[in-house]
Amino acid sequence: MSQPPFVDPESLPPRSSCGYPEPYRSRVMPREKRALGDAFGLTKIGVNLTTLPPGKESSMRHWHTHEDELIYVLEGEVVLRTDAGEHVLRAGMCAGFPAGVQDGHQLINRSDRPARYLEISNRDPADEASYSDPDVDMQYRITPDGGRFTRRDGTPH
Amino acid sequence: MSQPPFVDPESLPPRSSCGYPEPYRSRVMPREKRALGDAFGLTKIGVNLTTLPPGKESSMRHWHTHEDELIYVLEGEVVLRTDAGEHVLRAGMCAGFPAGVQDGHQLINRSDRPARYLEISNRDPADEASYSDPDVDMQYRITPDGGRFTRRDGTPH
Repeated sequence: MSQPPFVDPESLPPRSSCGYPEPYRSRVMPREKRALGDAFGLTKIGVNLTTLPPGKESSMRHWHTHEDELIYVLEGEVVLRTDAGEHVLRAGMCAGFPAGVQDGHQLINRSDRPARYLEISNRDPADEASYSDPDVDMQYRITPDGGRFTRRDGTPH
Repeated sequence: MSQPPFVDPESLPPRSSCGYPEPYRSRVMPREKRALGDAFGLTKIGVNLTTLPPGKESSMRHWHTHEDELIYVLEGEVVLRTDAGEHVLRAGMCAGFPAGVQDGHQLINRSDRPARYLEISNRDPADEASYSDPDVDMQYRITPDGGRFTRRDGTPH
């Protein structure tokens, strides 16, 4: 293996992209992710170190069909939105979302400084995502030529 | 779902146990783990918050057949042992170990204060572990009645 045994995440290039169509992309960007699992060639789990600027959303509120997800807050604070309402998560706190449970989640940085957290999941090529908020007309579905974001009725944005 | 949407890990009961036979168990204990993934009913990934006292080893040096593993250091420092030698990992650094790569790893706390880290993996019931150090006569194998630790030749300790 040519993978290094360890890394300082600060040395990894941040990835600042988002597959969402507008107007959702602008609610997220310029979110930055550092792909820690990829740095070691991991394929069964994904671990990202994500930096979310003030005023931005981690994602639109969503749930996954085949992937468990866990968030661990490292710096700053975020507001977690689920069916249970809104809760502030500070550094050292965590939240988890089992695959298939239809309770969408998202994080919002309502503070005045960047928040950093780890986002952790298994990887499953069958995974799809559904979006919970009525004003977010989006879904992510697996298609014969790969996964894609569409409107809820399957048509393109 | 009756799972809470978030937890403060400090509120979770620490699990202080180790399936190893002696003399290996004493090299690890009293290591403490808080099962963050279990707190949310996650089954596809395991995420533990582990506290390793000074002088103790995270595990014997080992590699997994079916589970990727990633370590993220939160507090203190540990020494990582792999085929690449020994490297000090401080808070904010991480290390990763792809399933099936036969380069055993372990962490040792050679500092004078506890170290805390997240240990993250997928969960696979077919997973087995092999131990790398010549003086550790142990293996973990799946058997018809579950997994077990034995000597390398399959006999009990």
